[in-house]
Amino acid sequence: MGDHGKAKRGIPPKADFNAWYPAIVEIAELVDKRYPIKGMDVWRPYGLKAMKCIDALTHAEMEATGHEEVRFPLLIPGDLLEKENRLVARLKAARQAGVAPSEMRFDEGDAGFTKEVYWVKHAGENELDVPMFLRPTSETAMYTLFALWVRSHADLPLKTYQIVNTFRYETKQTRSFIRVREIHFFEAHTAHADEDGATRQIEEDLEIVNRLMEAMCLPVLISKRPVWDTFPGAWYTIAIDVLMSNGRTLQVASVHHYRDQWAQEFDLTYETTDGEQKFCHQTTYGMSERLLGSVVGTHGDDNGLIFPPSIAPIQVVIIPIAAHASEVIAETVSGIEVALKGAGYRTKVDDRDLRPGQKYWDWEIKGVPLRLEIGPRDVEQGVALAARRTGGKTPISLGDIVEGVNAQLAEVHDALSEHTATFRSNSVRTLESLDSPVEDGIFYEIAFCGSDADAEVLEKTTGLTILGDSLTGFDTEQPCIMTGQMTTRRQHLARMY
Amino acid sequence: MGDHGKAKRGIPPKADFNAWYPAIVEIAELVDKRYPIKGMDVWRPYGLKAMKCIDALTHAEMEATGHEEVRFPLLIPGDLLEKENRLVARLKAARQAGVAPSEMRFDEGDAGFTKEVYWVKHAGENELDVPMFLRPTSETAMYTLFALWVRSHADLPLKTYQIVNTFRYETKQTRSFIRVREIHFFEAHTAHADEDGATRQIEEDLEIVNRLMEAMCLPVLISKRPVWDTFPGAWYTIAIDVLMSNGRTLQVASVHHYRDQWAQEFDLTYETTDGEQKFCHQTTYGMSERLLGSVVGTHGDDNGLIFPPSIAPIQVVIIPIAAHASEVIAETVSGIEVALKGAGYRTKVDDRDLRPGQKYWDWEIKGVPLRLEIGPRDVEQGVALAARRTGGKTPISLGDIVEGVNAQLAEVHDALSEHTATFRSNSVRTLESLDSPVEDGIFYEIAFCGSDADAEVLEKTTGLTILGDSLTGFDTEQPCIMTGQMTTRRQHLARMY
Repeated sequence: MGDHGKAKRGIPPKADFNAWYPAIVEIAELVDKRYPIKGMDVWRPYGLKAMKCIDALTHAEMEATGHEEVRFPLLIPGDLLEKENRLVARLKAARQAGVAPSEMRFDEGDAGFTKEVYWVKHAGENELDVPMFLRPTSETAMYTLFALWVRSHADLPLKTYQIVNTFRYETKQTRSFIRVREIHFFEAHTAHADEDGATRQIEEDLEIVNRLMEAMCLPVLISKRPVWDTFPGAWYTIAIDVLMSNGRTLQVASVHHYRDQWAQEFDLTYETTDGEQKFCHQTTYGMSERLLGSVVGTHGDDNGLIFPPSIAPIQVVIIPIAAHASEVIAETVSGIEVALKGAGYRTKVDDRDLRPGQKYWDWEIKGVPLRLEIGPRDVEQGVALAARRTGGKTPISLGDIVEGVNAQLAEVHDALSEHTATFRSNSVRTLESLDSPVEDGIFYEIAFCGSDADAEVLEKTTGLTILGDSLTGFDTEQPCIMTGQMTTRRQHLARMY
Repeated sequence: MGDHGKAKRGIPPKADFNAWYPAIVEIAELVDKRYPIKGMDVWRPYGLKAMKCIDALTHAEMEATGHEEVRFPLLIPGDLLEKENRLVARLKAARQAGVAPSEMRFDEGDAGFTKEVYWVKHAGENELDVPMFLRPTSETAMYTLFALWVRSHADLPLKTYQIVNTFRYETKQTRSFIRVREIHFFEAHTAHADEDGATRQIEEDLEIVNRLMEAMCLPVLISKRPVWDTFPGAWYTIAIDVLMSNGRTLQVASVHHYRDQWAQEFDLTYETTDGEQKFCHQTTYGMSERLLGSVVGTHGDDNGLIFPPSIAPIQVVIIPIAAHASEVIAETVSGIEVALKGAGYRTKVDDRDLRPGQKYWDWEIKGVPLRLEIGPRDVEQGVALAARRTGGKTPISLGDIVEGVNAQLAEVHDALSEHTATFRSNSVRTLESLDSPVEDGIFYEIAFCGSDADAEVLEKTTGLTILGDSLTGFDTEQPCIMTGQMTTRRQHLARMY
């Protein structure tokens, strides 16, 4: 019966991830991909609610850490992109002029966003004097104003963020949430008095990331990106990659330490207590709808989605059994709904005129973490039957329904966390040497301290990509996988999205 | 002392509205207008919070009336604009072919959005095959998908909405919130089985509008727009115009009944219970950041903004007096803060190291409706001194602080409502004849049932604009101001933004 239901809805087995993922995002009604522009999906109500639940976690973290929400225009004058390109060129020239590499880590091949932006050069029937581009991210827009907002040390630190739509002209194959052309984007931008202040901000950002990943039960690797993969204009980039169940990593967040590199280009200075003018040091922290994509990919199964309770658009669905036969059941259900909503749980009663089994499948597909079944016998016994989306059923007392639901949702969270921890420990292994076989679905740690040229050979030989240095090195020195030199540098190597 | 503070901040007198308005939106830190594109302001934290409070009222109304939130892409393929233009042309042709005017009210001069849209024709270094435009509103984007979503009568009514950024290439002078090029926009779109269903939706929309206007204490006229001012593609348009204190009306919301006109162009049909295919009837309901602009313009005074409590980003500011001298005061203030936040009030403690008078001015400028002053004598007497932004001070008991604040905020709301009602009744008058003098700052009601040509003469003679028919006509027939014919049609005539 259950299998029939699944087949009817056409969910491919999750083991066939590349078929399952694009199917489930539509079957569960997160998005509609039939919008007539490739890579721009329509957010359906259920998908949008899920994203807003993730945003709510982000807003709460920003509020708790003293960031203020702003909103900058989508359109940016073209000359600011030229300014960014000048910054990139300047950094490259400085590096080439022999500044110590530890001072200037920057990829010489990257030309910023020039090839990735959408341009607005026409409006109405006119050609515009100054072409504008759709923000791919907002450094250039924001720092133009930061230079006006920051006058003295008293204005620092400046901690701002926004959640907005951004745009990238993707030429690769698009995929809902994972690679899209209009991106639901979070970006925090801060300015500080000195490098240490910015470094402390990076630490705070990483603490926030850890709390968010824990709330969503996502398995991640955190890596300081190699120089060639550092964000244009950044001193260094730390990226957070989710270990997707198809064996690829998906970058869902990144934090960048800019030192005073952008400040110099945008003349962002402040007056110190001694009356001196100094450049600010800056950071950014970005995340996107990829968070939702990784929740879908990490927690779903053959029956559909599984939402961690922290971000489930519906946390509890209540199914009255044979409700037509009994007013008592209808009253009981209504009482539970009021109690749970009152306690702040996102709750839905499914009183559609359908067989219970049909309803179960529907909410399984949508990944609702907890289902309460209320039948005549349950009411008699003063219980509801709680079915967890992660497996298992438990009767919980109607007298203590809020506490019971709370405990059941905690069990779902714990089951997902445990599953994530197991997956992580089974999937992350050490690659001892270039001769060791590279397995599908495995993410590797390596001891590596070689040159850029060594890295290129390593990537070509293994078919994997270097994600960068783990934030914690090895306790004891190991031989580098390429050079044999002893090193404590622990780096990550995986198949990237 | 107070005057000195005001002068220092450079607030012009409100009587000089055209100087006051653009000054106060920046002085109160709602927006920063120094962004390098005209008509695209930066939302500062305080302004964004105010807009989000307005949005929260809208979300709650949408939720309560069974609308589902969606999010459509910003970019729309150019061929959909051509489709819209065909619809407009078809309606015009049908009208000219002699369909009864009551069936087809449509302005023949309006060519839709062609002259108002921003175009994206380039991305990266490429010219796009299909040019796209930035949504000015989302009919064409949405109805393309509605045609896929609606299959049968069981899918109706379809009630959706979104809150997004939209774009208009304004050539007139821009003004924060009132006339901007990137617009913070609300749009609800619905589909129904028949004309009556759509008409009932329009009624629901008008009830929502009335509740929102009441919550924000805004004085409005509601008018069914004349045919030449009907939204392109609409059967009729009802607009909500705020009576701004400078004597101009500002359209802040509009609802449109589309009948099945759009459905025919977008092939939006459903199967009836009899198995017949029928076109849907549709409505839209739009509002924008002009709501915030009209709150600013309506309630501010020479000292700054005044926010109605329903949407105040900060509802209560607590000022400890001589706090350094007393631990008791600090504890009292902290206790009040916890109690008020716990009760859901947006509360802020201002413990900056400044003179109390300085703090009072700051929060007056920002329009915080209620200030609580807590000094040593107040604590002794077990009270806080509550100062209302609308005038008046009252000691309220610390033992019952939540109830006290609740009552004080209700007084502020009532004072604003009363002021609005007085303003409205003093400012809306009947214009008896074309010879009557037209006064600055007055909005007129007229008896009018003339032709379009009569309307043109009326507008030119008075220098005012016809807003359209009031939803309630005169009880008894009056002579038409132009033709002398007896009519119950009550129309509105005013200076429009």
